[in-house]
Amino acid sequence: MILTVTLNTALDLTYRVPRLDVHGSHRVREVTERPGGKGLNVARVLAALGHRTVVTGFAGGGTGQELRRLLAEDTSYRAHDAGFPVEDALLPIAGSTRRTVGVVDESSGDTTQLNEPGPQVGPDEWGTLLAAYGRLLRGEPHDGDRARPLPAPRAVALCGSLPPGVPVGAYAQLIREARAAKIPVLLDTSGEPLRRGLAARPDLVKPNSQELAGITGHTEPLRAARGAQRRGARAVAASLGADGMLVVTPEGTWQAMPPERLSGNPTGAGDSAVAGLLSGLVEGLDWPALLARAVALSAATVRSPAAGEFDRDVYEALLPRIAPTLLATAP
Amino acid sequence: MILTVTLNTALDLTYRVPRLDVHGSHRVREVTERPGGKGLNVARVLAALGHRTVVTGFAGGGTGQELRRLLAEDTSYRAHDAGFPVEDALLPIAGSTRRTVGVVDESSGDTTQLNEPGPQVGPDEWGTLLAAYGRLLRGEPHDGDRARPLPAPRAVALCGSLPPGVPVGAYAQLIREARAAKIPVLLDTSGEPLRRGLAARPDLVKPNSQELAGITGHTEPLRAARGAQRRGARAVAASLGADGMLVVTPEGTWQAMPPERLSGNPTGAGDSAVAGLLSGLVEGLDWPALLARAVALSAATVRSPAAGEFDRDVYEALLPRIAPTLLATAP
Repeated sequence: MILTVTLNTALDLTYRVPRLDVHGSHRVREVTERPGGKGLNVARVLAALGHRTVVTGFAGGGTGQELRRLLAEDTSYRAHDAGFPVEDALLPIAGSTRRTVGVVDESSGDTTQLNEPGPQVGPDEWGTLLAAYGRLLRGEPHDGDRARPLPAPRAVALCGSLPPGVPVGAYAQLIREARAAKIPVLLDTSGEPLRRGLAARPDLVKPNSQELAGITGHTEPLRAARGAQRRGARAVAASLGADGMLVVTPEGTWQAMPPERLSGNPTGAGDSAVAGLLSGLVEGLDWPALLARAVALSAATVRSPAAGEFDRDVYEALLPRIAPTLLATAP
Repeated sequence: MILTVTLNTALDLTYRVPRLDVHGSHRVREVTERPGGKGLNVARVLAALGHRTVVTGFAGGGTGQELRRLLAEDTSYRAHDAGFPVEDALLPIAGSTRRTVGVVDESSGDTTQLNEPGPQVGPDEWGTLLAAYGRLLRGEPHDGDRARPLPAPRAVALCGSLPPGVPVGAYAQLIREARAAKIPVLLDTSGEPLRRGLAARPDLVKPNSQELAGITGHTEPLRAARGAQRRGARAVAASLGADGMLVVTPEGTWQAMPPERLSGNPTGAGDSAVAGLLSGLVEGLDWPALLARAVALSAATVRSPAAGEFDRDVYEALLPRIAPTLLATAP
């Protein structure tokens, strides 16, 4: 089992409009809703890859209910031979889960994104999550709606922004607990939560160039990734957009990119890369294989017509064509 | 009791962002939610004016639940000495009530509006509404969540767009039933539902200049309002934005405007005008008094800092200063 943690889950809405005019009034042509927040997106890809996956975090209010309903009804995993449904171990809170609205301008294909900040989380709610997370790590019954026993996770991913009220050191605390339980832990966040998280020594972090620059002050990716590693991560996987991904690890430094430039919708490409890394860690792949998988999944997500889903044919066709380059044998 | 019908209710969201950049990503600074759809807005103003008001129409899904919760918890009427809570006789449907999103750009104060189309309504659901509406007209127990008896309405307002699946002649049918029950009926909609509604001879319609032009082909307001009256309405109240309002009636034609230009947020000004007209009809005001009230309420809504609410002090100060001009004694 793989556990993903999403403290700031979201009901992701996509609005299609013929053309977005600032200060105009628009009748939305088509509305789609899906359960979102980085950890939920990662979980869906993991489940499609055939890994039993559990999501925890917070869900509250009408939007939280809607998110859980959509998660329970999600059958996208069925498109994949090996797929499983994602299991819901989300915890209820008094506040309402946020919405995100992506407005797709059909005349240009571009998206304007509006993200609500998220619910206020109380200290008791954060305490409840910490306790439930501890039980999940130990394979004990959890606080979710269903109390059926789950195995202890083989890896944990901590994903996305923190909602208001959750302490900025939240991820650092969750990382320390996973390390104490000897469970590999991946962190995908930004800003101060990333900075604090690094100091708690996660096994892997997956920042993009901008997030790395924010933490280290370096804009050159290799230098920035090495800087992030020095701040505490065992390994750093830096996503570089069209330039693929760079991993800096104790065993060496590699870079890989897709064999050709890909056009499409980049929504969810980073989350698919996290799923690739995490599944590879659990399966015991070496770094080059793990990197190739992350890059292929990411590219197959850009190429998929449905935002946040990957195209399995593209993934399987790309994977053998991605050859990571060894940049250095030392970190 | 006054009844307002909103077939396409909405959960109205307002997002405040420091600045709206097309194709950019925005963290929303502040989110507000309120129960919406024209008939609900009209009802809130009627209730604040001291009229017992019942809303019917459709509400479904998570957004419908949220809308009903917000309606039940709404205490804005308490700001008015005479205020009452709005009573909920909405009918559940399988589809989800739409959202509208107003994105306020704080750098300019301008709003970009995104309106979802609304849920698919099934023929059975429309039939259920028709039956419930008939019972409401006759003062019989209705199909809403509460079955406590209501008096028959003294006036009915039919407001806003039709959700998908509701027949385009829906308002015409609702008008015919109100007329058969000898209850005055006001129609506030646009396009084909307005055109069909006119033919069913409503007591009053309240189009704006654009809606009038769409129906009659005339851009000159007086000519267009007379055209709409010839198509079947007993009286036409045409809202003319900053130029106030024009009424064409069997007793004469009047125009009124606010004593000075008003700046502010026009959201809900048209709905407040409908509430002014409807309350005046029920109280037996003559046309000039009814027109003055509609214009004063509309202006007091533009001047209120809260979108869709009216400022009572502004309303009471403006009302005696609005002197309708008699344009013609014949229609």
